[in-house]
Amino acid sequence: MAILPSIKGPQDVKALSKEDLPQLAKEIRQEILEVTSENGGHVGPNLGVVELTIMLHRHFSTPQDRFVFDVSHQGYVHKLLTGRQGEKFRKLRHSEGYSGFLMRDESEHDCFGAGHAGTALSAAVGMATARDLNESPEHVIAVIGDAALTCGITMEALNNIKASCKKLIVILNDNKWSIAPNVGAIPTYLNELITNPVYNRFHQDVESFLNAVPGGQAIKKFGKKVKQETKDFLIDQNPSLFEKYGLRYIGPIDGHDMELMDQYMQFAKESNEPVILHVLTTKGKGFDVAMGDPEKWHGTSPFCLTSGKSKPGKASAPPAYQDVFGKALVDFAKADKRVVGITGAMPSGTGLKHLADEVPGQYFDVGIAEEHAVLFAAGLATSNIKPVVAIYSTFLQRGIDPIMHDVALQKLDVMFCMDRAGLSPNDGPTHHGLFDITYLRGVPNVIIMQPKDEDELVDMMKTGLDFKGPSFIRYPRGSGVGVHMKDEPEALEIGKSETLREGDDIIIWALGPMVQDAFKLANKISAEQGLSVGVVNARFAKPIDTTQLFKDAKHARLIVTMEDHIRKGGFGSAVLEELQDEGIMTPVVRIGWPDKFVAHGSSNADLRAANGLSPQDMENDILTRFRSLPAATVEAASESVTFPSGK
Amino acid sequence: MAILPSIKGPQDVKALSKEDLPQLAKEIRQEILEVTSENGGHVGPNLGVVELTIMLHRHFSTPQDRFVFDVSHQGYVHKLLTGRQGEKFRKLRHSEGYSGFLMRDESEHDCFGAGHAGTALSAAVGMATARDLNESPEHVIAVIGDAALTCGITMEALNNIKASCKKLIVILNDNKWSIAPNVGAIPTYLNELITNPVYNRFHQDVESFLNAVPGGQAIKKFGKKVKQETKDFLIDQNPSLFEKYGLRYIGPIDGHDMELMDQYMQFAKESNEPVILHVLTTKGKGFDVAMGDPEKWHGTSPFCLTSGKSKPGKASAPPAYQDVFGKALVDFAKADKRVVGITGAMPSGTGLKHLADEVPGQYFDVGIAEEHAVLFAAGLATSNIKPVVAIYSTFLQRGIDPIMHDVALQKLDVMFCMDRAGLSPNDGPTHHGLFDITYLRGVPNVIIMQPKDEDELVDMMKTGLDFKGPSFIRYPRGSGVGVHMKDEPEALEIGKSETLREGDDIIIWALGPMVQDAFKLANKISAEQGLSVGVVNARFAKPIDTTQLFKDAKHARLIVTMEDHIRKGGFGSAVLEELQDEGIMTPVVRIGWPDKFVAHGSSNADLRAANGLSPQDMENDILTRFRSLPAATVEAASESVTFPSGK
Repeated sequence: MAILPSIKGPQDVKALSKEDLPQLAKEIRQEILEVTSENGGHVGPNLGVVELTIMLHRHFSTPQDRFVFDVSHQGYVHKLLTGRQGEKFRKLRHSEGYSGFLMRDESEHDCFGAGHAGTALSAAVGMATARDLNESPEHVIAVIGDAALTCGITMEALNNIKASCKKLIVILNDNKWSIAPNVGAIPTYLNELITNPVYNRFHQDVESFLNAVPGGQAIKKFGKKVKQETKDFLIDQNPSLFEKYGLRYIGPIDGHDMELMDQYMQFAKESNEPVILHVLTTKGKGFDVAMGDPEKWHGTSPFCLTSGKSKPGKASAPPAYQDVFGKALVDFAKADKRVVGITGAMPSGTGLKHLADEVPGQYFDVGIAEEHAVLFAAGLATSNIKPVVAIYSTFLQRGIDPIMHDVALQKLDVMFCMDRAGLSPNDGPTHHGLFDITYLRGVPNVIIMQPKDEDELVDMMKTGLDFKGPSFIRYPRGSGVGVHMKDEPEALEIGKSETLREGDDIIIWALGPMVQDAFKLANKISAEQGLSVGVVNARFAKPIDTTQLFKDAKHARLIVTMEDHIRKGGFGSAVLEELQDEGIMTPVVRIGWPDKFVAHGSSNADLRAANGLSPQDMENDILTRFRSLPAATVEAASESVTFPSGK
Repeated sequence: MAILPSIKGPQDVKALSKEDLPQLAKEIRQEILEVTSENGGHVGPNLGVVELTIMLHRHFSTPQDRFVFDVSHQGYVHKLLTGRQGEKFRKLRHSEGYSGFLMRDESEHDCFGAGHAGTALSAAVGMATARDLNESPEHVIAVIGDAALTCGITMEALNNIKASCKKLIVILNDNKWSIAPNVGAIPTYLNELITNPVYNRFHQDVESFLNAVPGGQAIKKFGKKVKQETKDFLIDQNPSLFEKYGLRYIGPIDGHDMELMDQYMQFAKESNEPVILHVLTTKGKGFDVAMGDPEKWHGTSPFCLTSGKSKPGKASAPPAYQDVFGKALVDFAKADKRVVGITGAMPSGTGLKHLADEVPGQYFDVGIAEEHAVLFAAGLATSNIKPVVAIYSTFLQRGIDPIMHDVALQKLDVMFCMDRAGLSPNDGPTHHGLFDITYLRGVPNVIIMQPKDEDELVDMMKTGLDFKGPSFIRYPRGSGVGVHMKDEPEALEIGKSETLREGDDIIIWALGPMVQDAFKLANKISAEQGLSVGVVNARFAKPIDTTQLFKDAKHARLIVTMEDHIRKGGFGSAVLEELQDEGIMTPVVRIGWPDKFVAHGSSNADLRAANGLSPQDMENDILTRFRSLPAATVEAASESVTFPSGK
């Protein structure tokens, strides 16, 4: 009989006999594989933490105790064990289903949500400190990957643990990978720990000690002596990095051996000081295909359960923006050896993998370290190198200070390519890239571009590389438009828009993929309403092409802005500012995302419809405003001698 | 004869005999004390690095070689040795003088500017990597304080050194202080290093070895053997934290002993791998008063050279905003033990020192770790604690990602108090707080306030503490207005403005200290032009009080917004968005800072005048626009039945 369906909450995990646990682990893996093979998702990370998560729920009791999972993409097992089996789990990452991440709104067992890496330890230090202030009894357990140690926030948290709180359990889930293999000194160091004879000796000694104890489980009675052994082995003989931060280090242990974890977790639980338990896990454990290619199987699209092959997508989908970007960068790098690419642990996602493969000497992966990525680029740019920093829009939020204080203030020639500008629908609010124009537009000295298609992306890359100063290009996740690609990219004139369709009544200024939407709307409104609707490909969110904008605003009766970005402070807001400063009072309808966090969902279309951005919604916004206009505004009337207006 | 005046550049430092160096050091200290006693400035840090900087210029040659000073407030010595003595140094930090920080624009010897801490190592890794890519011969030297190691960016950089570049010299200038004493595990660890017998033995052994060398200077010939000794002592016997990051650790040595530094710097220079030279210095060295109180003398206002006493400021200046904030927080914390204060190494600057002194159990200094500060607060807020995070506006740029991804998305009750919103005139572009409304206004779920005076600041603190969700209060550096302080603060209605003066022609919506300016302008324009000018204290930059705004915009012929903040995306832009969305076409003049980085200068008034924000400039902007208006706009005309308009 299947065990998993009987697990209604953590208490049922605790009630199972030890002998049932391997079966439970097996069923969890099967459920995760079935769901992700349909929906896509983070297969590898979740298959790796099945035993770890079971043991956490055996030893601790959420929601009183707190599990803070870093990134939280490895939370599927936790969801299955905390009352979230069934229909909504089956629709994981889709409109009617649960999030692919932990969410405080979703369950009382999720004490902290995440999507960006490196936040768990800091938040857990906060919770443990609150526990001490409140004099309450709960345990706080941070589960962090080895990749989190490449992120500065985790190191800031490490530095504060001892000063802030009395106890804290840190589980270091070490699988050697973030999304790509980890880079830098810390992962190397962890590898040394694993192979270090001192630690291995400790491990064997404690094990043999434990094995000698009747039943092998009565660890509690002997805790004191064992702890002394730990101390003897770890502190006195070879202090680990973590002990320099005041954490008692325990490990490394096999994270798939539940007997062993049972013992060590009890260790950790009883400790009266901060401890770090180093657990070795295998990404994709239990699914051979995934274990064989951890990078591909970190997160995946729907796949065949037997072969592991991806289910076919749209047959003739145009190339993805990130591939166009990655391949173009290879060309730029080959043509000019000063051009280098920098990623923060995202070589595949950003498309920089092409550069890594073909021009490895001009490629740098700095780990989950966005601030360092920006500053590293700034340093390079002072020395005759042309760095291209490829970071998702949402992760670049980490780099705003060095963008401002180091790159822009010093007018350094760094080009930022912001992938995932717009929605990342299945991932949700932690991954959508809807804020970047607002947070970048106030930065002096920079230019911000967005291409209408993949060919223009390459033109913009050339523009950015030629530009003396910081440049930003934002573009969406996934397929381009399928346009013809020029053989040679052409640099664009800075701050120059492209008029695609003339109009007399309404002129739509659209940015990026919204140019396509604008065209469709213009055709429809023109055909059905008999209005003359123009379309401008704005190209630049900063600087705005004011020459053309002022001309258009004096000519037409209504300006519409369209952007795949929030309305507050975005491209449309820039248009408002320019018109107002010039004293041009033509009305403006600004189309963009509302002032709220956008949930996850099955598709861009679903999420647009849920947020007032369906084609019909946009058309209504435009026509409602147009119809509310007085017969002619003062300015429009004064211009109408030159430009015949109205039909 | 004085030596310093003869130093026209680094070559002159190299040409001095060893015997002249103590005299040079003495003269540099005298010059720095004379200038800072007049102008204020970073006395302590600069007096601490006199010998270190001299030795750097003896061993290396800028501008070919690169000195990257972290924060760069310790760069006065470097300025004096690189051709920047004289009138402009005498006016340091004032309008006609040099910056108090390094600036690429100021000298070719300044390869990287800074003002925020923790950036130097990352930038230096970039420069060293560029050096390797370019196959050029320059040395790259990062000079970082021990405080930089509390900052995550430095740790991210440490993790990447070995993977990115072949060699790099890191000088760890260890003086035990950032601005306040350093906190956390790393400073504790450094202290252990200093007292560690292994390191001390190394130190003595190398010294005695060097002393045995004829002349004590012929280190070069024996470099290899000495390096082997280093390795024996450091790597094999007791690997330091830095060696876990792949850096050869050398030290600690006395940073005021130039003979010793001479030898060790040669060591570092000849190394073919990344090295860290641990140098112990004393803040304020050579000025007893400063050595006695390093926190006060980190940065200081003008003082008396003999007594060290501060020169008297304005006799009856009202209390500073930060003191009002700090004292009010003490009251809130005493009344509710869930209220805690968090600072990132700025207890004095922010005013949190009051809390540290009076309610130390509810006070946390996390070091130069703004991201951790925000996340730590988020963790606390999940557990029945009410955290108040006090970070300068410019430094909060580091916290935007956790503000968005952790605090706002999860609607956690964290209050952010942003000191230094507006200008920090003597410090300049790295310290002005002119961007925060723009970068925060797009964040969903938050409120943003700015008080017109110090009494309203306390009301806003109560408002923020009561508010369910993230709240932000911005307020300027320095003195309040001098208003009467209520005995008990009153919570404000969220999103409600305060009309201070009625008007029919023009209504000024002002934020924060601009309310005072608006009043003066309103009085003047009213008296001189016979126009009816209203003044509204906006209070909230988000949400805007649209009820009142719409009423005002329908009533008056011109709306003016005034903010001590950039115009791009700021408060005025929010007003534009609201009016436009409502279809109200009343013209708006937006007064604020232009789209550029604002330099340092002697005073707010000087910098305002230099950037089009003098009272006369603002008046001109308003009147020019008002006079350009048609006799009555369509909307104003339609409203004029109800509200008589125009004089």
